[in-house]
Amino acid sequence: MKQYLKIDPWKLIEDEFHPEYNRISEATFSLGNGRFGQRGYLEEEYTGDSLIGNYVAGIYYPDKTKVGWWKNGYPEYFAKVLNAANWASVKVQVNQQIIDLHRCEILSFTRELDMKRGVLSRKCTLKLDDGSTLTIYSKRCISQTHKEIALLDYTIEFHDDMADLQIESVLDFDVRNEDANYDDQFWEPLFSHGDERMACIAAQTLKTGFTVRVSSDNSLSSDGELIPPGSIDVRDKVVIHNYSLDTVKAGQRFTLHKKVRVQSPLFYTQSELLSEELRMPRMIADATIPELMSAHAESWDKLWTQHDVQLDGDPSLQQGIRFCIFQLLQTYNCEDGRLNIGPKGFTGEKYGGTTYWDTEAYCLPFYLHTKEQDKVKKLIFYRYRHLPQAIANAEKLGFSDGAALYPMVTMNGEECHNEWEITFEEIHRNSAIAYAIYNYIQYTDDKHYLAQGGLEVLIAISRFWSQRSHWSRDKEAYVILGVTGPNEYENNINNNWYTNRMAAWCLSYTDECINYLKDADPESWKDISDKVRWQDDEQAHWRDVEKQMYYPIMEGSKVFLQQDGFLDKEILPASSIPEDQIPLYQHQSWDRILRSCYIKQADVLQGLYMLRDKYDEETIRENYDFYEPLTVHESSLSPCIHSMLAARLGDLDQTLLHLRRSCRLDLDDYNNNTREGCHITSMAGVWIALVEGIAGYDLRDGRPALAPHMPEMWDTLSFSLHHRGVGYHVKLTPAEMIISHDSDTSHDVYIYDEMITVASGTSHSHSITTLTQSEPS
Amino acid sequence: MKQYLKIDPWKLIEDEFHPEYNRISEATFSLGNGRFGQRGYLEEEYTGDSLIGNYVAGIYYPDKTKVGWWKNGYPEYFAKVLNAANWASVKVQVNQQIIDLHRCEILSFTRELDMKRGVLSRKCTLKLDDGSTLTIYSKRCISQTHKEIALLDYTIEFHDDMADLQIESVLDFDVRNEDANYDDQFWEPLFSHGDERMACIAAQTLKTGFTVRVSSDNSLSSDGELIPPGSIDVRDKVVIHNYSLDTVKAGQRFTLHKKVRVQSPLFYTQSELLSEELRMPRMIADATIPELMSAHAESWDKLWTQHDVQLDGDPSLQQGIRFCIFQLLQTYNCEDGRLNIGPKGFTGEKYGGTTYWDTEAYCLPFYLHTKEQDKVKKLIFYRYRHLPQAIANAEKLGFSDGAALYPMVTMNGEECHNEWEITFEEIHRNSAIAYAIYNYIQYTDDKHYLAQGGLEVLIAISRFWSQRSHWSRDKEAYVILGVTGPNEYENNINNNWYTNRMAAWCLSYTDECINYLKDADPESWKDISDKVRWQDDEQAHWRDVEKQMYYPIMEGSKVFLQQDGFLDKEILPASSIPEDQIPLYQHQSWDRILRSCYIKQADVLQGLYMLRDKYDEETIRENYDFYEPLTVHESSLSPCIHSMLAARLGDLDQTLLHLRRSCRLDLDDYNNNTREGCHITSMAGVWIALVEGIAGYDLRDGRPALAPHMPEMWDTLSFSLHHRGVGYHVKLTPAEMIISHDSDTSHDVYIYDEMITVASGTSHSHSITTLTQSEPS
Repeated sequence: MKQYLKIDPWKLIEDEFHPEYNRISEATFSLGNGRFGQRGYLEEEYTGDSLIGNYVAGIYYPDKTKVGWWKNGYPEYFAKVLNAANWASVKVQVNQQIIDLHRCEILSFTRELDMKRGVLSRKCTLKLDDGSTLTIYSKRCISQTHKEIALLDYTIEFHDDMADLQIESVLDFDVRNEDANYDDQFWEPLFSHGDERMACIAAQTLKTGFTVRVSSDNSLSSDGELIPPGSIDVRDKVVIHNYSLDTVKAGQRFTLHKKVRVQSPLFYTQSELLSEELRMPRMIADATIPELMSAHAESWDKLWTQHDVQLDGDPSLQQGIRFCIFQLLQTYNCEDGRLNIGPKGFTGEKYGGTTYWDTEAYCLPFYLHTKEQDKVKKLIFYRYRHLPQAIANAEKLGFSDGAALYPMVTMNGEECHNEWEITFEEIHRNSAIAYAIYNYIQYTDDKHYLAQGGLEVLIAISRFWSQRSHWSRDKEAYVILGVTGPNEYENNINNNWYTNRMAAWCLSYTDECINYLKDADPESWKDISDKVRWQDDEQAHWRDVEKQMYYPIMEGSKVFLQQDGFLDKEILPASSIPEDQIPLYQHQSWDRILRSCYIKQADVLQGLYMLRDKYDEETIRENYDFYEPLTVHESSLSPCIHSMLAARLGDLDQTLLHLRRSCRLDLDDYNNNTREGCHITSMAGVWIALVEGIAGYDLRDGRPALAPHMPEMWDTLSFSLHHRGVGYHVKLTPAEMIISHDSDTSHDVYIYDEMITVASGTSHSHSITTLTQSEPS
Repeated sequence: MKQYLKIDPWKLIEDEFHPEYNRISEATFSLGNGRFGQRGYLEEEYTGDSLIGNYVAGIYYPDKTKVGWWKNGYPEYFAKVLNAANWASVKVQVNQQIIDLHRCEILSFTRELDMKRGVLSRKCTLKLDDGSTLTIYSKRCISQTHKEIALLDYTIEFHDDMADLQIESVLDFDVRNEDANYDDQFWEPLFSHGDERMACIAAQTLKTGFTVRVSSDNSLSSDGELIPPGSIDVRDKVVIHNYSLDTVKAGQRFTLHKKVRVQSPLFYTQSELLSEELRMPRMIADATIPELMSAHAESWDKLWTQHDVQLDGDPSLQQGIRFCIFQLLQTYNCEDGRLNIGPKGFTGEKYGGTTYWDTEAYCLPFYLHTKEQDKVKKLIFYRYRHLPQAIANAEKLGFSDGAALYPMVTMNGEECHNEWEITFEEIHRNSAIAYAIYNYIQYTDDKHYLAQGGLEVLIAISRFWSQRSHWSRDKEAYVILGVTGPNEYENNINNNWYTNRMAAWCLSYTDECINYLKDADPESWKDISDKVRWQDDEQAHWRDVEKQMYYPIMEGSKVFLQQDGFLDKEILPASSIPEDQIPLYQHQSWDRILRSCYIKQADVLQGLYMLRDKYDEETIRENYDFYEPLTVHESSLSPCIHSMLAARLGDLDQTLLHLRRSCRLDLDDYNNNTREGCHITSMAGVWIALVEGIAGYDLRDGRPALAPHMPEMWDTLSFSLHHRGVGYHVKLTPAEMIISHDSDTSHDVYIYDEMITVASGTSHSHSITTLTQSEPS
């Protein structure tokens, strides 16, 4: 763990430069607007450890895989999120010295990410080799108002007279992915252009043929006077505006304004990208940078109104919570059904791909409960668009008759990952996709979605489970062999409880949906059953599998065993692991990790979270008490589930422990890997812990149901919920819950087991359970 | 399966050119003498599919590994057997046309490998584009007499007048490994030289710094007249002797003689390699090629006297058996303790490394029972030399106190392989190494070896097993979790019977050896126990583990279960696999293979083979009958064990089925992968099947014991056995066994349960059991 950022409810603040943490800061200080984004790197030349990363949503490269020992069925490529043009580069040379924080003496340094306004700023004072000093002020943002626009406001103030100054404003498309498998470059230049103000480069990805065009409008001024560039250097992949001055007076300031436009092929034809005029759109060209930044701040203001979770009483948690929500909203906003939520968003290259089961299992609640139905539907519909590829993927692995296996990692529906124990065996991902459909339909009541695609996906997934399970004569039950569960610290295990349980759930839910549609909309059912070549005996077999599925259990208890043979392990608490062995995956060999009882992330508990309406509290508690001590939370996706369950079980310490880990995972670098990028998808788990856990949010009879357990030491916890067109506002204090909504009519909600009617324009107050420190026993 | 070679007891004969099988032929027609070797490629330019491969024993390159998803504990490199200088290259151009079998019309073609004499020869008649014809006669060998020498005798006979002829005799060190991970070149040239007769190049491997020097003496003659080279082209990595003629008469023959010397750094210092005189040693220079080839044939004659297995009555099996013995003797001859038996020998690049558990588990019986004790000891001692690296390897994986894990694949004792399920989990290899020590000491009675290194190895291995097993409270027994057994179509399984059983055997045998040494040689024990920091409680714990080891069994039977949960699988016979899915690993995805009951190679049966003296026939039979139908033999190491057991169980069909597969695996390309190289180590399994299986060879009271089951349709099976300094000769017919020996005194042998004394100079005849076709039931 590292704690070098200052605590502030709305800002990340690094108040001295930490070169050893620079890659971590570059990740946490990232900016984005759902369409494109970048790491929070320094604008100037920096020769220390750094990853300059700029990423455009949906633009990827199918990099040739690196596999030592090829297994039949592996995909040939791994889709990489692509590092694209660096538009924020400013190179400064003064008195013959290049400004480089790795080489200059730093007298003071502050880097701030204002999450309320979405602005990254920096102030730093440097001393040069000749003893002279200067201060850099920079501000940048990626506009939430104008989705193609980014802005840079960069000022240098000199405290001494200087003999010469050179400022280069650089647009640099000569970039590589650090994680390229064979050091290949992925872009080929199409054209570049430079004139007195504009720089523009279009480049195309090899193989996939995506063209991205990046333009910038550059202006340097001092004391209100524009300074024209001395030269413009236009190369294939780089355009440089060169400003040079012979003398600089002490006190003089130079300000570079860059307005940047990033155009993606998702929104333009190739010919538009190659032929559009080489200027900024009038609206952008005419506005000043402060005006554009202020419009951007207004957009953020609206986003926060809808999405903020306000926590008074624990500033460190508040900062972490807002950081998670901020990064989620920077990454994905349900505006484009072709996009999804990459595990690192725009903050790093690790993992590649954009779509993991994270989206359905962890991210959905946040979007489902804060966004309008038509927006959430885009996220759900995404997998329907990929159904043909999921069926092809299953066929490749030997399944038939329209069974689908969704990929572990994908950009376009095709599998990218190739570790056999994940690609071929971590098949529980299929269930999360079915579960998301269930969740979506339950909360929105949009049953039409079944006929619009949902049921086809459910049938294809259920067919997979029905083929993937088989009757064990030995156990006299259906078994599922050779899987990897959510806990990836077990591979190729038999009868993972979570996998078996969710498979059975899928079969049962699909069965129910088929029956519903047959009855409610027989014509649609006819169309679908024709399309999927439905066989009438399928449903009966599914019921058979579901009813006779095998579940490993611990005899004499309510504990579900994570897998067959789990009790053969030496069961030791994670607290007994020596400090210097943590995280395990960075210190222990893989066989040792696999043999041990240590759990990477919630597995049985993940199932109990998802199917919480089917298990009593005692069962959940017994399982929690058994598994929690064994869990090392080395997946970012784990602590949120533990926090959520602990809140419902009334365990304050556990609730807060895991909530803190969940929301400050990257800020404090718990897992020692934030340098690779932030854990974007897990950030949505914070919302699960707070709203589903502490506020106890569920659905009952189609109505919102809240059953809060409010930590005694917090002052207030407030958030908004979107439910079937109504915006609810919920505020918790240790004593009461106050709920109101924005609708013109009355609405019923459940608070604990009581149904309450909240009239329009009123707020309802209700006493609640407080989570208190348990007495030491 | 492919059957394009003619059947002959002493030769491989390809009597028309099969370009589609060219890589297979290149592998099967390989030559070698234990020090260096080469694939049987064509001397001329060939633009079709080919791998020109020359390999020098012990010379490797640590190629940077290719890993998609790195796991802690993986080795950084994979040692590649190095493709070295091509000395056999002859480029011919006539009437402006390059001779290239891919482009010329082939009128006739015969390629022969004479295994009796160790000579590869070829005769082929070609028609050029202009209609003229010529015949190529080539012969080459790698001398078993002069271990640095190879010979090429290459003649072209013209059947028409020709306008021009160019012959280039090439020494080419500009070679690459086809299996290089990143297309790197591994050699850098040190010097090259060329004069009227000699070519010489020395090159050094990058990283490892091995220098190899290859020289050739070239002479071209026609009608007894030497033709001097027109030019000599000396480049960094290539030296070419260029002979050109203006006219050629019909009937004229040109003969190129090349005497080649390959000097390895294992036998020379660097300065010797760089400064030695640039001529052939006098003995070689003065001899003619026919003389040198005849000396080489005499050496082969001696080898065959000692090693031949003669089978009359089945020429196809006879050919396969001799092919296996021939290739083994070409690969390794127990002459150098630094070398070992690579899985592909000198026949291909696949797999890299030289030492696998194959050596101890499959190859040892052949060498142990045919070579003198001091030679076999070199093979056994090899692992003692690698003990420090095996201890370091175990430490890297978290073991301590002198526990050793021998590598899966190695060149110098360090692990090279990196698939976690193999590298970290296929740990049963350790037991084979202990078992080889046991076998060696049993048969040779060389108990001194315990004090000379054997016991240190045994203790280190037993320490590993004692740490790798743990007490399961659930099973109330010691368990070994997370392993891959010999059947690599199961990964990360628990309680693999073979692994558990052999681990317990190691503990028990080490315990016995310690007790023996304490008593027989207390001083040596004192030295060893100091050296290994012996703890007095170790032995007691080992006994505890050994006595309380858990073994999965099938209730109500004598069948040992391959692993926990094996009966959860769908148990279907391998005969039900559709033809187009075979071999499985080339057609099915890995998860499907893992879930299935199909067994890649003998696993439980491997254990019953090794510990056959501890199990009754009924137990072996029940297990054979259960596992044999499930076994797909997709490892070359599998059928020999099945054949051996089937012979002892009296099943003629099974014996012959698996024997045929084992000895003709490469000749008929059973596993569709001989193009990558021959399966050298599995060839020794043929000897297991014949001598341990059909002849029923074992040890009893320190005496050779034979219990033959002779196939009724064979005429004779004859072979020699070396046992404690005595050479026995055994001849089986369907009716009797005749045994004699070469010793001056009498020796006792067991035949079945009867002890027989065979006097010097006499032969003993004994009636035997015949294996007959079982009646259809």
